Amino acid sequence: MSETLSLLEALIRRESVTPNDAGCQDLLAERLIKLGFTDERLNFADTQNLWLRKGQQAPLFVFLGHTDVVPTGPLAAWDSPPFEPTIRDGKLYGRGAADMKGGIAAFITAAERFVVEYPEHKGSIAIMMTSDEEGIATHGVVKVVDVLEQRGEKIDWCLVGEPSSDQKIGDVIRVGRRGSLCAKLTVLGIQGHVAYPELAENPIHTFAPALKELTEEVWDHGNQFFPPTRLQVSNINGGTGAENIIPGQVEVQFNLRFCTELDEATIKARTQAILDKHGFKYDLQWRLSGNPFLTSQGALIDATHEAIESVCGFQTLDDTGGGTSDGRFIAPTGAQVIELGPLNASIHKVNEHIGLDELEVLSRIYQQILVNLLAY
Amino acid sequence: MSETLSLLEALIRRESVTPNDAGCQDLLAERLIKLGFTDERLNFADTQNLWLRKGQQAPLFVFLGHTDVVPTGPLAAWDSPPFEPTIRDGKLYGRGAADMKGGIAAFITAAERFVVEYPEHKGSIAIMMTSDEEGIATHGVVKVVDVLEQRGEKIDWCLVGEPSSDQKIGDVIRVGRRGSLCAKLTVLGIQGHVAYPELAENPIHTFAPALKELTEEVWDHGNQFFPPTRLQVSNINGGTGAENIIPGQVEVQFNLRFCTELDEATIKARTQAILDKHGFKYDLQWRLSGNPFLTSQGALIDATHEAIESVCGFQTLDDTGGGTSDGRFIAPTGAQVIELGPLNASIHKVNEHIGLDELEVLSRIYQQILVNLLAY
Ligand SMILES: [Zn+2]
Ligand SMILES: [Zn+2]
Repeated sequence: MSETLSLLEALIRRESVTPNDAGCQDLLAERLIKLGFTDERLNFADTQNLWLRKGQQAPLFVFLGHTDVVPTGPLAAWDSPPFEPTIRDGKLYGRGAADMKGGIAAFITAAERFVVEYPEHKGSIAIMMTSDEEGIATHGVVKVVDVLEQRGEKIDWCLVGEPSSDQKIGDVIRVGRRGSLCAKLTVLGIQGHVAYPELAENPIHTFAPALKELTEEVWDHGNQFFPPTRLQVSNINGGTGAENIIPGQVEVQFNLRFCTELDEATIKARTQAILDKHGFKYDLQWRLSGNPFLTSQGALIDATHEAIESVCGFQTLDDTGGGTSDGRFIAPTGAQVIELGPLNASIHKVNEHIGLDELEVLSRIYQQILVNLLAY
Repeated sequence: MSETLSLLEALIRRESVTPNDAGCQDLLAERLIKLGFTDERLNFADTQNLWLRKGQQAPLFVFLGHTDVVPTGPLAAWDSPPFEPTIRDGKLYGRGAADMKGGIAAFITAAERFVVEYPEHKGSIAIMMTSDEEGIATHGVVKVVDVLEQRGEKIDWCLVGEPSSDQKIGDVIRVGRRGSLCAKLTVLGIQGHVAYPELAENPIHTFAPALKELTEEVWDHGNQFFPPTRLQVSNINGGTGAENIIPGQVEVQFNLRFCTELDEATIKARTQAILDKHGFKYDLQWRLSGNPFLTSQGALIDATHEAIESVCGFQTLDDTGGGTSDGRFIAPTGAQVIELGPLNASIHKVNEHIGLDELEVLSRIYQQILVNLLAY
């Protein structure tokens, strides 16, 4: 059995449902301390964070991951117990196999082989792990980045091991992410009886034309790296339940996934302009989940392209789709950030798995990236 | 103390919260049997209905009312106990004083005086009472009307004693009501993640332009008796609560108060035409609460106008506003229907009351209407 596979099995056996780490980080630290990494724990509230570093020089290469996993869902729906790693038909099944203990195991063994081969490598290598990426993510990477910035510890290259691949390992890498901005809107009216609408002001009626405009707005046309910005209304709730009462207010939640053509202030101003046209009173609260970021060029992306081509024999596709990841907290520091990891088809589902071959290919790509960036 | 006032006090003391009658109908029957009325009970499920009739000939005049009252609300908010009739400053306070035990008491004594004065009057006089007008109204007047129609008992004139007056007794009578049609709409989409709108179909977005059109539609322009038809959306609910999930459906409830320019079938067809334009799937359920009705001319309205002018010295205002009443079940039989009763300012509130003078004036108007229609 390969080193990577046995490490992955050991990680899956640790039931680290978010925000629990369940000893995963200890296991990683134990292995890398032996190779000269320093072991630092940066725990906040219920979240465990790990910072392992080898070397004091720039450039600093960081592998970023999370040891927590999403809940299993109904156990009866799994063909084998989710925390008992099980091999069937060339695949390893278990919660976290793809998201993202597979990526972690592949990188740890890649780093081990690299360090053994190049003990006097250039720059520094670090591992950053959190246990709440799948949760609310307020005490994880965002806090660790604060600590590093306060002491002037600068990340040059960040490789996020999240599942990015589509049909085969390395066919897609993520070189950026859209920004995400959430809004909570309360449209205010005057409650009344449906038989006397002249004594009331129906907020569903006053909001209707604004809702239409918000959903039809062309925010931008995207650019060569990003699809166009999109707004989606996720929740709308108004009414007392009674069929003869005009409600006093409507609550609306919407989200914008926005590209680098727009910024937070512009989106807020354009949204308010649409709402203000229609003459109703409202309250609007915003929450920025992350700004868009993009690594369109640089040594990290060159090293990754080359590594995939040399290990897999094909060219990868640079992509900026998908949801948010912890990369959003690293990019604002000025680091180059890309995401490369297992196939994402089975993540967050029952019977999550990773192909045994895929695991080995991924580990070799990771090793080659280190060679391309840090070998003498 | 007047006969009318003492009868009203006796009625208020009976705690007939809907659908309970609490002995009110027995009290009325007891009094009128002595004057030659027949006593028939037409009870259905939890609802008590009373049918008292004197005479076998046409035309048949019916006084329609309900002995049930709405709940008291917080007792502490009342200045005197709601089921203990209390006189202060020339007003009688108690639950049901205005809606509508005051109207009942005024009519019963009016009928008594009329019958004593004109024992050989023309036609017939009847009293129809139910105990669930304030409730769901499924076992009340609608069922009694069925029974009467099955045996060919035809109502010519129906006077509903609901509180119609605004500033003084008789200043406003209701000569019709708008129809009421309720709709329950489910707009169907495809659930998904806000980051991948191309894999989902957001029903809030597909519905938005249809919602705008529904709320802006000019259904008609009303007519000389009715204000224009109005649609009001009373409830809209879509969303899982999560801010990153596109919901799979939106539930919408709306109500139309419609005038005699429109009918149920036309409203349904026009609504569906608006929805069908926008290419989303939906489910639409309708419930007709009542068709519009109107008594714009005839002997009943003439007799009422004349009675108010002779008793009060002013001309009344014919009106079709307000919510539904049990008159909606009588009008479809072809009867002339009008509503005339106490001031409506305090109904359904704490400290419900009727002025002592008002009670006497109302009883005299009722008596004069009987004289105008049925005296030799
Ligand atoms: Zn993940
Ligand atoms: Zn009433």
